[in-house]
Amino acid sequence: MLTLYGLTNSGNSYKPRLLLAKLGRAFRHVEVNSEGGATREPAFLAKNPNGKVPLLELEDGRLLAESNAMLLYFGEGTRFLPTDPYERALVYQWLFFEQYSHEPNIAVRRALVIYPARAAQATPERLAATLAGGTKALGVMERQLSSHPFMAGECFTLADIALFAYTQDAALAGYDMRQFPHVEAWLDRVRADPGHVPLEWTGP
Amino acid sequence: MLTLYGLTNSGNSYKPRLLLAKLGRAFRHVEVNSEGGATREPAFLAKNPNGKVPLLELEDGRLLAESNAMLLYFGEGTRFLPTDPYERALVYQWLFFEQYSHEPNIAVRRALVIYPARAAQATPERLAATLAGGTKALGVMERQLSSHPFMAGECFTLADIALFAYTQDAALAGYDMRQFPHVEAWLDRVRADPGHVPLEWTGP
Repeated sequence: MLTLYGLTNSGNSYKPRLLLAKLGRAFRHVEVNSEGGATREPAFLAKNPNGKVPLLELEDGRLLAESNAMLLYFGEGTRFLPTDPYERALVYQWLFFEQYSHEPNIAVRRALVIYPARAAQATPERLAATLAGGTKALGVMERQLSSHPFMAGECFTLADIALFAYTQDAALAGYDMRQFPHVEAWLDRVRADPGHVPLEWTGP
Repeated sequence: MLTLYGLTNSGNSYKPRLLLAKLGRAFRHVEVNSEGGATREPAFLAKNPNGKVPLLELEDGRLLAESNAMLLYFGEGTRFLPTDPYERALVYQWLFFEQYSHEPNIAVRRALVIYPARAAQATPERLAATLAGGTKALGVMERQLSSHPFMAGECFTLADIALFAYTQDAALAGYDMRQFPHVEAWLDRVRADPGHVPLEWTGP
């Protein structure tokens, strides 16, 4: 059986869980408390030298890191990844946008705000920088979603799964979502897509 | 003809140029001085609301952002992107590693060090954080390259193009490359792959 090593409360760990739920594929969830240092232990580093969750282990023991790489791996040949080369490239575009411009602000600010152990890192400068960067990223999403129902265009794709993971908690992380009504409406559309499961779900 | 908007000296802008050179595909290079604020001007933001180069404009005017999305778009069906699902997923993995764990440290530190206008941002804390983060990323590459000739395994792929872009300037950015002999040997293997062009090359 597939094994997903992840922290339940991590949006990155949630992404492959959400896709596997939609695809009806069974997997085993193994909790790894990355906030408590478990990803820096030798046994975990032997599996992922970059020391991050999620980590996927295939039935034959082969390993794959990076949440968005897992989405592309499982999404191939499904309704979540277009076959048209340009439409597919737009999915790639938004997956890289998510990891470069969105997650390092919104996910990081969420962690600074919600995890007590991060309090020392939650300096005014860092909170301000992630607020500004995340607000800019949400503005880019707002603009796209003001003229398209989904991030990569007309259909729900892997780009929506990736960007939903942390955008759903942007208000919790301190972003003023009243500035982004199209993003708020899109969050509801993502939740309405068949097979949706919440962040807390860790498998069948 | 394809148009690539980019800053010649940007490693991200160089990635699609290097791939197009290897593929022998003609394109028009349009210099956009992102370091001078050109990506924040309304005419550019109308093309890429995220305000970043590189930006690709297809013959019919359709646009694509994100350097690694361009690599996947042009790489499809070529020797640079495997067809085996798992081998392909490893390419994805390293492309996301590059944008999340490598570029935000090594490319950012390179910019802080080489662009005079960035001097005010080059605080001791920022230089130390990017030195630590980039050294960790280079260590992950060193470990992979100690047992494989290329980042995704046995063959040269898009992952090598993406990671070469800024690793080639890691010494300039202040990283001690004597710690990473396998990375140094890999840089030479990348330069020896057919069709290589240097960062300064902006088209035929």
